[in-house]
Amino acid sequence: MEVIKKQTGAAFKLKKGQKLKVIDPQGEQVSDMVLFNAEDTREKISSGKTLDFEESILITKGNFLWSNRSHKMMEILEDTNGRNDFLLAPCSPETFQIMYNNPDYHPSCFENLYTNLEKFDIQPDDVPTAFNIFMNVQFAPDGKLSVDPPLSKAGDYVLFQAQMDLIVALTACSAEDSNNGSFKPIHYAIID
Amino acid sequence: MEVIKKQTGAAFKLKKGQKLKVIDPQGEQVSDMVLFNAEDTREKISSGKTLDFEESILITKGNFLWSNRSHKMMEILEDTNGRNDFLLAPCSPETFQIMYNNPDYHPSCFENLYTNLEKFDIQPDDVPTAFNIFMNVQFAPDGKLSVDPPLSKAGDYVLFQAQMDLIVALTACSAEDSNNGSFKPIHYAIID
Repeated sequence: MEVIKKQTGAAFKLKKGQKLKVIDPQGEQVSDMVLFNAEDTREKISSGKTLDFEESILITKGNFLWSNRSHKMMEILEDTNGRNDFLLAPCSPETFQIMYNNPDYHPSCFENLYTNLEKFDIQPDDVPTAFNIFMNVQFAPDGKLSVDPPLSKAGDYVLFQAQMDLIVALTACSAEDSNNGSFKPIHYAIID
Repeated sequence: MEVIKKQTGAAFKLKKGQKLKVIDPQGEQVSDMVLFNAEDTREKISSGKTLDFEESILITKGNFLWSNRSHKMMEILEDTNGRNDFLLAPCSPETFQIMYNNPDYHPSCFENLYTNLEKFDIQPDDVPTAFNIFMNVQFAPDGKLSVDPPLSKAGDYVLFQAQMDLIVALTACSAEDSNNGSFKPIHYAIID
């Protein structure tokens, strides 16, 4: 079991067929995930393609995560919480400046994604809209969005299986609104 | 007034401060739009950042379209129809193979975006999830998505103002579901 400490991230390779278990060890925490084809990192996870092919804003057990080239990247085998989406971008320095009116430095998922992805020659501009695991974004019939505390309880997890060789980046979210103001770790395990 | 014939596209530059009027001349047609910073095309329109900063799935008058670098790219000054979103990806050859079970060649917004963007050295992999003008994607409380005929009437338009120097690509959508099975043109005008 690997530990992503609060307000940090990790990036690693996952082989086709391997499983990735992403765990919320304490509950009410969010993990942003992005995926790249390990053989050609210009192929990456796509919000639009996933919503298109899965015909749903909420993505859970039985759904696939799709790439910008219309290929399956991961299947979701299990999901004990059931609330994940692509709606909002990873929190970034500008999120805290614009949304939280905080001009000072603040850790962010965006920074934690691109700094961990540097070793794979992936640049900040290459980071796509992320898959927000455990995130509880509520949408009203008129489309208005609100970020509520995650519904995840301690030990909730999502189990993914890679459909191609992947580079995966994960965070333990740094944004107050996403995790009810209490920054917590995320755990993950790679299962052969 | 420029004409985008049915199942085709266009790409052009728009200077900061210039306005772009995108018109549905016959009603019930969709136009997919992507934006790039004309000075550095690695900065582009972002679904996640726009939904984040505008706090809405539906984007209309008074909203801005934001880039992956958290900059404003366009403001929506007028919108006579009021239904536009980022939910689904531009239709692509794979859309017709996977969603429509059609193995044969079919024109697509994705092809019409990247072939028109080639002259600006923008590659297919660089095309982001598009802003879907006039598209009527309905979302249920459980997140399930359906593509309904557009609500736009003949002459409906959206008026945008560029917040930076832009490269803009637009289509007249090629997908049966998006336009009630009748392919139609899109008109646009650049206004100083």
